[in-house]
Amino acid sequence: MALVIAGPSGAGKSSVIAELLRRDPSLSFSVSVTTRPRRPDEVDGRDYTFISEAEFDRWIRAGELLEWTTYGGHRYGTPRSELIPRLTRGEVVVVNVEVRGALALRGARLPGPVVLVFLVPPSREELFRRIRGRGTESEEELARRLRTAEEEIRAIPEFDYLVVNDELGQAVRRVEAILTAERLRIRRCSPSA
Amino acid sequence: MALVIAGPSGAGKSSVIAELLRRDPSLSFSVSVTTRPRRPDEVDGRDYTFISEAEFDRWIRAGELLEWTTYGGHRYGTPRSELIPRLTRGEVVVVNVEVRGALALRGARLPGPVVLVFLVPPSREELFRRIRGRGTESEEELARRLRTAEEEIRAIPEFDYLVVNDELGQAVRRVEAILTAERLRIRRCSPSA
Repeated sequence: MALVIAGPSGAGKSSVIAELLRRDPSLSFSVSVTTRPRRPDEVDGRDYTFISEAEFDRWIRAGELLEWTTYGGHRYGTPRSELIPRLTRGEVVVVNVEVRGALALRGARLPGPVVLVFLVPPSREELFRRIRGRGTESEEELARRLRTAEEEIRAIPEFDYLVVNDELGQAVRRVEAILTAERLRIRRCSPSA
Repeated sequence: MALVIAGPSGAGKSSVIAELLRRDPSLSFSVSVTTRPRRPDEVDGRDYTFISEAEFDRWIRAGELLEWTTYGGHRYGTPRSELIPRLTRGEVVVVNVEVRGALALRGARLPGPVVLVFLVPPSREELFRRIRGRGTESEEELARRLRTAEEEIRAIPEFDYLVVNDELGQAVRRVEAILTAERLRIRRCSPSA
C-alpha cells in the first residue's frame, strides 16, 4: 500500500511522517528527488535525493519517475525504484508529495492500493504563521507558497482522508488509525458502493 | 454513521459491541427486534426487543422495519426508530445484524454513511467450536447454524472491512481504528476511485 501524505507547505507533513516511521518499523519512506536546495536540517538520500536540473531531465527521459511536478519554482519527483519493488512485496510505503503529485500517483496504476491523506493545519491563520515561520524562503517565494496553499486546499475532495494537524501526537495517531483500517479493508475488484 | 457489525454466529459480535460501547460513550446501540426466545443472560430492550410473531407482522405492516430476515428459524429486524433519528443528528450508531441484514442496510438509503464490518473467528475450527460451545440450540438448529455460517462467509467481498476476532481487546481496537478512519474519511458525492 502507498500511504500518500500531501497537504500545503506548513501542514507538518515531514514531522508527522518522521514520527509515523519511528513508531512503526514495518513502514518505509519513499525518498523523492528534487532540484530544490537542501535545507540545513535535511540529509541527502534520507529526506530527499537532491539533484541538478540536468539530472532531473535525465530521470524523466529514462522513465524513472512515476510523477513529477514543479512547485515553488523547483521540481519534485517520485522515483519508480522507491515504490514499485516494495509495493510488489506487499509493504507499506509512506510518500511525502505535493498535492498534484498525490493525485498523479492515484492514476499511476501502482501494484497495490494508493491511500491519499490530506494533512492540514488547524486554521488558515496557523497555516500562514507556519509558512512565514519557516523563514527560509524569499518574500516572493513566501507569497507564492501562500497562493499555492489556497489552491491546494481546493483539491481536498479528491482525497480519501482529511487529518487536522493540531497536535503532532494526535495527528500521528489519526494516520495510524487510517493505516490499521486500510489494512483491514476488503478491496473489491470493481468500484461498487 | 451506521457502524454495522455482522458475521457468523459465534464470531463474537455481541462481546465486541459491548466492549466498544463501554469504551466510547459517544456511541449508541441499535436494539433489533426478534421473535427468538430470550437467552438467560439477555435483557429485553437492551440486547433485543423480544416480540411475538404477530407483533413482528405488525411492525412490518406499519413500515417500521428498515430490514428484516429469518435466521435459524426466527425473525430479526432493524427498527427505523433506532437508526433514522440518531443518524439524522450525526451520531454513530452500532448495529448488530445478520449478514443479509447488513447488506440490506447498505441499500436502505439511510441519512448517513453505512460502514459494514465482517467479524470472523480466527479459524473454521474455532467457529465450529464456538457455535457448539454455546449449547443453547438443539442439534438440528446447530447443524443449520453451521451451514448458514459457511454460506455467510461467502458474502465477505460485499463488506467494507474484515476483522478477525482472535482476542477481544485486539478486535475492539481494530474496530475503533476503523471508526476513527471513517470519521476522517472524505466522502465524495459520486463514487470515484
